[in-house]
Amino acid sequence: MKVRKAVITAAARGERLYPVADTIQKAMLPVVDLDGLHKPTIQIIAEEAFSSGIEELCVVCAPGDGERYLSAFASLRDNLGRSYQGSDWATQQADKIDFLLSRLHFAEQAEPLGYGHAVACARDFVQDEPFLLLLGDYLYVSARPGQRCAAQLLALATQEGCSVSAVNPTIEHQIGRYGTLTGALVAGQAGVYEIEKIIEKPSLSTAELELQTPGLRAGYYLCFFGMHVLTPSIFGILERHQATSNGNLLLTPALQELAETEKYLALEVQGTRYDLSRPHGLLRAQLALGLAGEARTATLSTMVELLAEANGR
Amino acid sequence: MKVRKAVITAAARGERLYPVADTIQKAMLPVVDLDGLHKPTIQIIAEEAFSSGIEELCVVCAPGDGERYLSAFASLRDNLGRSYQGSDWATQQADKIDFLLSRLHFAEQAEPLGYGHAVACARDFVQDEPFLLLLGDYLYVSARPGQRCAAQLLALATQEGCSVSAVNPTIEHQIGRYGTLTGALVAGQAGVYEIEKIIEKPSLSTAELELQTPGLRAGYYLCFFGMHVLTPSIFGILERHQATSNGNLLLTPALQELAETEKYLALEVQGTRYDLSRPHGLLRAQLALGLAGEARTATLSTMVELLAEANGR
Repeated sequence: MKVRKAVITAAARGERLYPVADTIQKAMLPVVDLDGLHKPTIQIIAEEAFSSGIEELCVVCAPGDGERYLSAFASLRDNLGRSYQGSDWATQQADKIDFLLSRLHFAEQAEPLGYGHAVACARDFVQDEPFLLLLGDYLYVSARPGQRCAAQLLALATQEGCSVSAVNPTIEHQIGRYGTLTGALVAGQAGVYEIEKIIEKPSLSTAELELQTPGLRAGYYLCFFGMHVLTPSIFGILERHQATSNGNLLLTPALQELAETEKYLALEVQGTRYDLSRPHGLLRAQLALGLAGEARTATLSTMVELLAEANGR
Repeated sequence: MKVRKAVITAAARGERLYPVADTIQKAMLPVVDLDGLHKPTIQIIAEEAFSSGIEELCVVCAPGDGERYLSAFASLRDNLGRSYQGSDWATQQADKIDFLLSRLHFAEQAEPLGYGHAVACARDFVQDEPFLLLLGDYLYVSARPGQRCAAQLLALATQEGCSVSAVNPTIEHQIGRYGTLTGALVAGQAGVYEIEKIIEKPSLSTAELELQTPGLRAGYYLCFFGMHVLTPSIFGILERHQATSNGNLLLTPALQELAETEKYLALEVQGTRYDLSRPHGLLRAQLALGLAGEARTATLSTMVELLAEANGR
């Protein structure tokens, strides 16, 4: 199975914690990426996909936002050209923006009818291929040298020829925020599970009864990491669920049905996810990418220097 | 002398190092302020002025940007109301935005004809009063408990009834970036100088010949901190300089003339300035404000946690 397409959902408007004026502004917030370049977060997410073998990308956005993304990138690119007089990093960043724009598509979500609905909006782009699904406000740092988080997921999906969701063991008091699942460890494959049951934002009591997974530390559950490889059959399932969704079509029940109808694995990704929508989420992501990448020394010395200054006060 | 008005110059477009698409986007980048609230940087600068006794504020911006600032704040305020369901911090931040908007004026700089020209654009707002001049891309952390940097400057200007520029001793290899000055220490007032000569971005040899200041550490010079209290006579000087400015009207020569014609002091401000336009400038400012303010504990633990994660890799 070859995965050529990725979908990034970025249509949420003012539904998340991070206080910026709108989705575009949030997606264009500049962060120093692993390669040491300042980039808008949406570009960092897109390049996680490209660097993992993805060829075409679709951003699911609110009506009119496609044009606004394009003009924001055009303006940034113009600014790079005008202000940085062809410095190496500015030239590299301009080239990366051109690469992104040459592979970027948009699908508009007319109304905020739920995360499943946002995914369904990408059906015309995806057609009948498997696809990588990413969230517009998560950034990832891999703990596996030379293999990004998306690449870990795509490697397993390609090898097994099935849907795979990234998961990470999560302490019980946090599972109420995530889709949580359980399954059977696949023999001989560390951190790979055959998914049996998925519940969206379970209560602790529900989780204790239905979502315990042997082999995890006590009090830990397998929660979605915010990254999936899905077969196109998800669209048929979502379409059937649409009728009874009451304006909030969730992805998780569709994934549960997918698990019942075809082979569907979960993979414990070796890495950390940073949610830009949480308090201090942008700062955490900036520091994490800075410390993990080529800007490591600069980031470290900045942190140490500022700690010294702060304690000098 | 009472100082009621402040001017923030924010018209520079793509002339600075920080790679964001435009001036508005840069000014709206959210940072956790000393009070622990996420705010656009332009609001943090404005509140430095308000908390120091300023009553009315004028942002010098590019044509059309005034409207864009207002809509960006309106959108942010709307987002706060819609997404954060009246949580305390969202309510506080919304109130602060309302306060800002009730005291905010704009002056358009039709063309980028130099920093002095940008200041001159605020003349109709300032009229014949003294005013506080701030830069749109500097954030300040005071080292004096309970007294912001702007407040230190305004206290001296009010007491002495004259123009005062904030300065800080700067190591010689950096002075080529700043307006640099020398003067005579005022007896009995620590860190206060009667300004004698100011040169914009001097060469080291020029500085050694003309800008040595007794009492500073060897190799250090007094450089502008990016914050001034000026009497309205600066506008007459700028107007005369306009004719010979060749499209780049500088402020520093006008300040030199001000020093020759009226009492003009420099004050070593107790604090640190963070230039958002420099590489890692936003990250540095975020960490510095975080460590200096109510978010200190959260910022510290975030830094320590991420250092641990990064070294675990």
